[in-house]
Amino acid sequence: MIVTLAGGVGAARFLEGVVQVVPPETITVIVNTGDDITLHGLYISPDVDIVTYTLAGIVEPVNGWGIAGDSTNTLGMLKQLGADTWFLLGDRDLAVHIRRTELMRAGHTLAEIADDFRRALGVASQVLPMCNEPVSTHIETDAGLMHFEHFLVQRHAQDRVLGVQFVGAEAARPTPGVLEAIRDAEAILIAPSNPIVSVGTILAVPGVQAAIAATPAPVVAVSPIVGGAAIKGPAAPMLTALGYEVSAYGVARCYAGLIDAMVIDTVDADLADGIRALGIEVVITNTIMRGLAEKRALAQAALDAAHQVVTK
Amino acid sequence: MIVTLAGGVGAARFLEGVVQVVPPETITVIVNTGDDITLHGLYISPDVDIVTYTLAGIVEPVNGWGIAGDSTNTLGMLKQLGADTWFLLGDRDLAVHIRRTELMRAGHTLAEIADDFRRALGVASQVLPMCNEPVSTHIETDAGLMHFEHFLVQRHAQDRVLGVQFVGAEAARPTPGVLEAIRDAEAILIAPSNPIVSVGTILAVPGVQAAIAATPAPVVAVSPIVGGAAIKGPAAPMLTALGYEVSAYGVARCYAGLIDAMVIDTVDADLADGIRALGIEVVITNTIMRGLAEKRALAQAALDAAHQVVTK
Repeated sequence: MIVTLAGGVGAARFLEGVVQVVPPETITVIVNTGDDITLHGLYISPDVDIVTYTLAGIVEPVNGWGIAGDSTNTLGMLKQLGADTWFLLGDRDLAVHIRRTELMRAGHTLAEIADDFRRALGVASQVLPMCNEPVSTHIETDAGLMHFEHFLVQRHAQDRVLGVQFVGAEAARPTPGVLEAIRDAEAILIAPSNPIVSVGTILAVPGVQAAIAATPAPVVAVSPIVGGAAIKGPAAPMLTALGYEVSAYGVARCYAGLIDAMVIDTVDADLADGIRALGIEVVITNTIMRGLAEKRALAQAALDAAHQVVTK
Repeated sequence: MIVTLAGGVGAARFLEGVVQVVPPETITVIVNTGDDITLHGLYISPDVDIVTYTLAGIVEPVNGWGIAGDSTNTLGMLKQLGADTWFLLGDRDLAVHIRRTELMRAGHTLAEIADDFRRALGVASQVLPMCNEPVSTHIETDAGLMHFEHFLVQRHAQDRVLGVQFVGAEAARPTPGVLEAIRDAEAILIAPSNPIVSVGTILAVPGVQAAIAATPAPVVAVSPIVGGAAIKGPAAPMLTALGYEVSAYGVARCYAGLIDAMVIDTVDADLADGIRALGIEVVITNTIMRGLAEKRALAQAALDAAHQVVTK
């Protein structure tokens, strides 16, 4: 089994490569739920949905979230009825949130629901929300403390980041299967996701970090920072706020002590020695995923790095 | 003020005529909520929505429910996720149920929400759900007791009707404004709705029947039964089950003692004497509403009947 720790769009694109390289049914994806938010009374789990839609082949390809070709008639009417519609939700996408909310009220866990949905959508890989308990990533900013989605989507990441809180993380428990998957994996791949608010959130669930530290499996991270900038999303101000430099080296520092190897982009080759000095093997390759061939190559590079660690 | 007691499609079509004859803002519609049902975790109020959509000019014109030109992408995805989708819900329509459910959870009453929505959709008439408490019309059948919508929509009214229960009605209270509107009305019009499960439900809310009996306003009903058959819906088996004949006379018997006059169709002219013998004035006219002119004429006939009662 291959275990991948995943945030949203970057991770999902990486996973599109991983499923080309190893049988999809041998992959377990542990997904960040810190971005989860209730809007219009509906429970929305953005990263779980992005990963599921992407692996189901129905994700909207340009943005990487939502469902391809989806309409927005419900949201338009919600707006007409006075609802605040800053978070874009398509009609098909809303069905997922409606059904999830109904099933949660009926007592089903996030993990049970995610498993139901990925099967219904034909996804062969396991999709595991990191925990069933509510964890909510909040960003400390100069405009106050706010939910991650308010920071990112509603306010367009315009506020100065001062810190990050994972509200509820201390009371969370890894989803059944998460610790076992990490223990028994052939390799742990940390997707090119935000190290603070995607992977960091997963690592904040008590027991996960220790399980990764203890697993005999090689642990390989793919840097989401290329040439000193995030490929997507607000990683840069978060790294800065937490005292890391905005670079593959900064990401390596986040993961120091936890990972065995790191895949960085060719443009960051000059950072390799610094990363190696942290006790991390380095693989240098193209990490920009423009198409399926590049996704596949990046996945192969990460798996090769894992193999190198094991055979070394 | 003109007060109308209303069920769904028949009442809404009648109201399209009433708003042509009197200023819309002088009309208060008291709407049955016994058909309300929670599906997919969303609170649906079919008759309130039908009346509101119709008066807003957005109702789907052929069926008389739902929103014209609505898509059903959300429902399609709900089905793919394993939900039971026997009750057709369009995407724009779902926004109404989503928003209503959210506002109810936030503590708003059905009446407050209905008022919000009719204003948002540009409806000048007052739309008052009969009560804020949950009342649920259940049909006793040879296949068991079932919610009205299960009987009508899911099982296509195929089961033999043995009786009707208004679950929760005893604990309900008329919505604030209902009793005052009835007391102060110039006329009470009972729309051509099902006398058992639409108007009967409203009358089952404690205090409503007494208020109608006590009002100085003339009370005029329009028969929903023409030529021995219901224009729409399952009135016939219900009238039969409760011991009424399926005719305008049977409807008159339902309302005997409560109404002053009744509008019946020309095809039922032979029933007029029998109805008059119940102490009810009779106006004979065309009651089939094919277009706006006929809706307007029927509304005028009902108002004329009210006027005749007053001046007599």
